[in-house]
Amino acid sequence: MARDDLKDMERNEAGITAVLGILKQRFGEKFKTSVSLRQQHSHTTTYLRSQLPDGVVWPQTTREVSEIVKVCAQHKVPVIPFGTGTSLEGGVNAPAGGISIDLQEMNAILSVNAEDLDVRVEAGVTRETLNQYLRDQGLFFPVDPGANASLGGMASTRASGTNAVRYGTMRDNVISVTAVMADGRIIKTANRARKSSSGYDLTRILVGSEGTLGIITELTLRLFGIPEAIAAGLCFFSTVEDACNATILAMQSGLGMARIELMDADAVASVNKYSNLDLPVKILLLLEFHGSHEGVKEQQAAFGEIAEEFGGSNFQWAEKTEDRTRLWAARHNAYWALKADVGDKDFLTTDVCVPISRLAECVTLAQKDIKDAGLYGPIVGHVGDGNFHAAIAVDPEDQDEIAKVETVANKMVERALEMDGTCTGEHGIGQGKIGFSAIEHGDGIDFMRAIKLAWDPDTIMNPGKLFSQ
Amino acid sequence: MARDDLKDMERNEAGITAVLGILKQRFGEKFKTSVSLRQQHSHTTTYLRSQLPDGVVWPQTTREVSEIVKVCAQHKVPVIPFGTGTSLEGGVNAPAGGISIDLQEMNAILSVNAEDLDVRVEAGVTRETLNQYLRDQGLFFPVDPGANASLGGMASTRASGTNAVRYGTMRDNVISVTAVMADGRIIKTANRARKSSSGYDLTRILVGSEGTLGIITELTLRLFGIPEAIAAGLCFFSTVEDACNATILAMQSGLGMARIELMDADAVASVNKYSNLDLPVKILLLLEFHGSHEGVKEQQAAFGEIAEEFGGSNFQWAEKTEDRTRLWAARHNAYWALKADVGDKDFLTTDVCVPISRLAECVTLAQKDIKDAGLYGPIVGHVGDGNFHAAIAVDPEDQDEIAKVETVANKMVERALEMDGTCTGEHGIGQGKIGFSAIEHGDGIDFMRAIKLAWDPDTIMNPGKLFSQ
Repeated sequence: MARDDLKDMERNEAGITAVLGILKQRFGEKFKTSVSLRQQHSHTTTYLRSQLPDGVVWPQTTREVSEIVKVCAQHKVPVIPFGTGTSLEGGVNAPAGGISIDLQEMNAILSVNAEDLDVRVEAGVTRETLNQYLRDQGLFFPVDPGANASLGGMASTRASGTNAVRYGTMRDNVISVTAVMADGRIIKTANRARKSSSGYDLTRILVGSEGTLGIITELTLRLFGIPEAIAAGLCFFSTVEDACNATILAMQSGLGMARIELMDADAVASVNKYSNLDLPVKILLLLEFHGSHEGVKEQQAAFGEIAEEFGGSNFQWAEKTEDRTRLWAARHNAYWALKADVGDKDFLTTDVCVPISRLAECVTLAQKDIKDAGLYGPIVGHVGDGNFHAAIAVDPEDQDEIAKVETVANKMVERALEMDGTCTGEHGIGQGKIGFSAIEHGDGIDFMRAIKLAWDPDTIMNPGKLFSQ
Repeated sequence: MARDDLKDMERNEAGITAVLGILKQRFGEKFKTSVSLRQQHSHTTTYLRSQLPDGVVWPQTTREVSEIVKVCAQHKVPVIPFGTGTSLEGGVNAPAGGISIDLQEMNAILSVNAEDLDVRVEAGVTRETLNQYLRDQGLFFPVDPGANASLGGMASTRASGTNAVRYGTMRDNVISVTAVMADGRIIKTANRARKSSSGYDLTRILVGSEGTLGIITELTLRLFGIPEAIAAGLCFFSTVEDACNATILAMQSGLGMARIELMDADAVASVNKYSNLDLPVKILLLLEFHGSHEGVKEQQAAFGEIAEEFGGSNFQWAEKTEDRTRLWAARHNAYWALKADVGDKDFLTTDVCVPISRLAECVTLAQKDIKDAGLYGPIVGHVGDGNFHAAIAVDPEDQDEIAKVETVANKMVERALEMDGTCTGEHGIGQGKIGFSAIEHGDGIDFMRAIKLAWDPDTIMNPGKLFSQ
């Protein structure tokens, strides 16, 4: 998706005018149409241009969301769900206008069931808020994308993060959702049982559907006990290949790493500056082990041996909470560290995921492409999953540079598909990767589209996303 | 679903006659219409009566499956996929006649990717065959329902088993499937990446769809390294409540049990006789820990302390492979052990899954109902998941007993739904639980049906299953 390809879609002006009037009257102060708010609600942390909704509404309950969708359905006006607006692929843009439904005020933690290790939340609760709330009870929710995103948004894009190698992604950790469908009906996709073979998996149809099938308003999520012992560690390698091979062997040995993250030398350099660290500027693996005290020690020792085989050096283990927190904060702030290093430039951030056996090759070739094109594009990756991101700096005013960056990013995605991988491991399709999704899924796209049309015949749910027009 | 409620559906005689002729000519010896084979292919390991298909075909390739489905689609004749025929809910019955597609000859293990911890198999490979094949490579596939089922069938019913508490169910362990859809088109639902946020989750729409949306012909599955250390253990309790409370606390402590199984005293008595064991006839928890040597020891010690709190006794640990194998073989043979104890009687085997905090209450009330009705119905359960089975003995010629058994089984399911659980944890809906599925999912059923009709407008794919007519 080139920046200029982002076409507006046909607007239903009469319908939009009618809906604006009805919502203003019904929602008063909780409905706004100012340009600044509409701009904020189409702003994406990417270089895609903004496409503004016509109004923004802040519902307080699932029933209110249902009311809003019913009004929009009657007038065939688009609805675009909004969490925290951290989509990287244009997920909150409104190419045909319509109503942005901002779920941030639906932010109650409804019930924690410690015995069942689950929690019920409204969709606007963010992952950090949830984990702060849970800490005293010795529980945590593991899925941690870079942003402090809303849990509804994370479910909608099937988000993951650094813990996915052990705890899975939103696919694995959502037990059930309550969603408002295109006709305004409210469904709950499942009860609270940890597993079920009762009927089609409605939960996992909605997880990852990016608001195109329904608006998630509540979620029941799996929780985990905070492990008895946690140890984080650093290890440096000369080549991406060595780091990946160490990862593969550790995975095969069933070491049970909770996190295993790669940063290339450019990323390490930026992180050093931004987070005031003094790490060797080489290929870094950043690890975390969860378990019992003895179990974690054994894992550390076993990983040490594996890393040594592949020339790993400068081992450091951080067992104190404050050291660990500092390291992971540095990792989570990597995006801002990179951003600080490129001044006024923006980033095109893309992510792919490949079978881990192809990861070293895929990363190395991406680095070469970036370098050959004269660009700056550090790489960070959730290597235990075969997933990595390139953040390629781009001057939004420089058409030549935009073209170069797009060429390099597209090549990275094409290569991932050739390697039996996916065009996005965790960012989603949105507007940015519609073309690649079509290549990836072949005839499968027809079956996706059939669901879309069966559930949302007037295509009012987040139109212009996932599918080409 | 009462035995007598199992109505035949309208048959398309002209279409069936046409299809029989075409398949006979095309598939020769690989197509049969003898009554004995047709009977075998509608036989279910349950008390539901058989409804015979009109012919059985043994395709050798996905393309042949596609050919068969195209012929059936053209003539609007039902197709019923058949794996090993171990469905407990009438999954292979042919209430409107049609063609049983037996996938047992598609039994090749196509490729093992040890680095990526995945394997690609044809749908007819059984779980035991796969694990025998993998053993030398230090790898295993964890999902283990009671039967030695085909992996295609296991995916279709979203099967699980004893390892699910740690390794998940088929929902979690299928990376991708190749499926033949109702129009004969072949789709592959995903590439080999371990995670993806690219589009609707076609894999998990097909997993658990029981052949009503497509016929799974190939699967890519997740594998795991055989852990360094494995220890099995036995512990006995006086009450179901104590056993469940010990389980809950162990789960909360993140002990990482690979298996935690409950048998009630009746089940233990049968298993003793059948497998020549000498276990105390009390409530049994049968456990397995996976990890490093020290890690497993720590887990054992920690579990020992927890069990003691709840009056656990007669601890035994089996660390030798042969002792472990004997114990788990006894558990997997529980169904046959029970069967041996009831002579000529059949069983109605039902399964439910509830939030674990409600499990003790749910099991205890089921036991009471069984006893109060004067029936014999031992209970075994995957208690880490909140999932349990009651196998209630029934004389298939005794209408009064059938009525009693159905009343008790239905009550068990209704209670599970009231407790925010599911009407089936791992057996599936088939024909037997259609009514309960409708209660469980409410309006969600309409959205399931919309997918069914969008993908299979002539409803030729395993008709009469999952949905009421």
